Amino acid sequence: MTSISVTLTGNPQDKPSTVKEMGFGKLFTDHMFMMNYRTGRGWYDPRIVPFGDLSLSPASLCLHYGQTVFEGLKAYCGRDGQVRLFRPDENFNRLNRSNQRLCIPRIDPQFCLEALKQLVTLEKDWVPRQEGASLYIRPFVIATDPKLGVKSGDEYLFIIILSPSGAYYESGLEPVKIYVESNYVRAVRGGMGEAKTGGNYAASLAAQDEAHEQGYSQVMWLDGVEQKYIEEIGAMNAFFLLDGQVVTPGLTGSILAGITRKSVISLLERWGIPVAERRVEAQELVLAYERGLLQEAFCTGTAAVISPIGELKWREHVMTMNGGETGPVARRLYDALTGIQYGTLPDEMGWTVNVCHI
Amino acid sequence: MTSISVTLTGNPQDKPSTVKEMGFGKLFTDHMFMMNYRTGRGWYDPRIVPFGDLSLSPASLCLHYGQTVFEGLKAYCGRDGQVRLFRPDENFNRLNRSNQRLCIPRIDPQFCLEALKQLVTLEKDWVPRQEGASLYIRPFVIATDPKLGVKSGDEYLFIIILSPSGAYYESGLEPVKIYVESNYVRAVRGGMGEAKTGGNYAASLAAQDEAHEQGYSQVMWLDGVEQKYIEEIGAMNAFFLLDGQVVTPGLTGSILAGITRKSVISLLERWGIPVAERRVEAQELVLAYERGLLQEAFCTGTAAVISPIGELKWREHVMTMNGGETGPVARRLYDALTGIQYGTLPDEMGWTVNVCHI
Repeated sequence: MTSISVTLTGNPQDKPSTVKEMGFGKLFTDHMFMMNYRTGRGWYDPRIVPFGDLSLSPASLCLHYGQTVFEGLKAYCGRDGQVRLFRPDENFNRLNRSNQRLCIPRIDPQFCLEALKQLVTLEKDWVPRQEGASLYIRPFVIATDPKLGVKSGDEYLFIIILSPSGAYYESGLEPVKIYVESNYVRAVRGGMGEAKTGGNYAASLAAQDEAHEQGYSQVMWLDGVEQKYIEEIGAMNAFFLLDGQVVTPGLTGSILAGITRKSVISLLERWGIPVAERRVEAQELVLAYERGLLQEAFCTGTAAVISPIGELKWREHVMTMNGGETGPVARRLYDALTGIQYGTLPDEMGWTVNVCHI
Repeated sequence: MTSISVTLTGNPQDKPSTVKEMGFGKLFTDHMFMMNYRTGRGWYDPRIVPFGDLSLSPASLCLHYGQTVFEGLKAYCGRDGQVRLFRPDENFNRLNRSNQRLCIPRIDPQFCLEALKQLVTLEKDWVPRQEGASLYIRPFVIATDPKLGVKSGDEYLFIIILSPSGAYYESGLEPVKIYVESNYVRAVRGGMGEAKTGGNYAASLAAQDEAHEQGYSQVMWLDGVEQKYIEEIGAMNAFFLLDGQVVTPGLTGSILAGITRKSVISLLERWGIPVAERRVEAQELVLAYERGLLQEAFCTGTAAVISPIGELKWREHVMTMNGGETGPVARRLYDALTGIQYGTLPDEMGWTVNVCHI
């Protein structure tokens, strides 16, 4: 791959000064990274260019047949002025796994990480310094062949855009209300549930809208085959503290292999808190709850880090966890992860990658 | 809705002169129809404009979370010079059902049909006159909010593009080889299988690529729950002639309600050929085959109309239908449907809509 060409914007935008102004994922920095792919040529023309609209044929494959994948990670600015990424190699490796499921050509993870570091360094003044805020990073790939016809594409765009963002949930680390979805299904084994691709999120919209109408934040997804086993919560992974042991659904193929999920498991193991990846039946939660053993429940994901669950509803069962307050395990995990991400705690696992200094 | 504004191209393209030049879905006419939607305002600014690239934010919802739907239909030019649509009301009604599943606002089917007729009339010289060729019509809706965050959009584009096209399968009404997919799953009940949305097609790409590598045209999809029952073939509906009765999988929610499928059922009923919509087990086909009762198999869809199956493979069973030749029922249906579409047979069902005369 040739080196990355850089075209600077002649029209830099004002940076948001408050977290409120930022919101989440609605403002973008002055530049983006792009490269093209064509069958026979491979990835070519890596470039940093001014952020701006894409010019896409209305027949572009990605607009019709959903051949898209994406990733999400963040750059954090510590009190020490160091800008850090959190396990970015995991994101680019997962992007390749998504690519494989969606018949999209592999990217070079190392090259993409270098490109990302160069882009973030150029945009370092966009990395928010406010506590809890960060620069959200969205790498994605879209098939751009201007042809109608269901087949995997021969032309792709890989793009990274950056968005200075406050917390994903405005309410921060406040427990949310979740209900178990009984009608809609997000993914099934043999499907593409473990890939980070648009269709999985599209499939979730109707259930999410219904949840909001009923005053819930998200739905908890059950497996597509038996509709018994817990899979994900919204677009996050699910954890439960059951009688002193943390359990999370195992990666069966229809569940996204979350990087926060993986990090949470590592931290728990390091702390000597028992943790198991296994099938978790919705019914099991009810039985544990009735015996007073469902101590905590929380979701994990890059956007929210840890999202504690205060209330969980399944059929006629309404379960309140930890008195509707954030539990000690969720709190400890949140503090540890954000401490590592913002550099206030030592990074003993070697998870962060330094990008630049502000 | 206000009337449709028209901006003519100053740069009309050469029209393809041969079917070979056309291919399928790769050339587009000089103009397209577009309108916008915004929450609180509804659909607005319906317009016919020169065909050209869309300008989309790289953060557009449709590029990340798959909130897209589409339709496919054709305009046919008869030997009488009459340009006809085939059951276009069915397409716009189905678009609204897809919209509902994907949390996209309803379109007005009648208005969209009028817009389509106006567009096709403007582009009538693009409607191919060659036998078997047609003007492929692709209405679609994409969510365009320039915001990262999984929620249904507040901004949409509805677009119709037109593509002069030869046969979808270059080999025409020649029997294809199909195998039954045992690993990948296209859709599951509770999912979005009955919606015409990108994610369903994205989910099918890997299996299709594998089928092609093995010398097969397409895969036959089994249900996502038990992986026993036949659902679709590629992106088409499936029909079997079993001991004199035609059977096709019933619409369970994970199967697209094909308009060709519906028309085939009507024609069979009209002809007094028994037809049943019901669950069809892959195992049932093998048992029928072994007893010499699997007489025909074929797929139906707008693009190919009828696609006969010459060979069907499931596990170790390789079944050859009708000596690998197109069977009489498939042939009769193909002739009837194309006869109605091209105006060489009387349209006794009132399925065609006249657009203009060339």
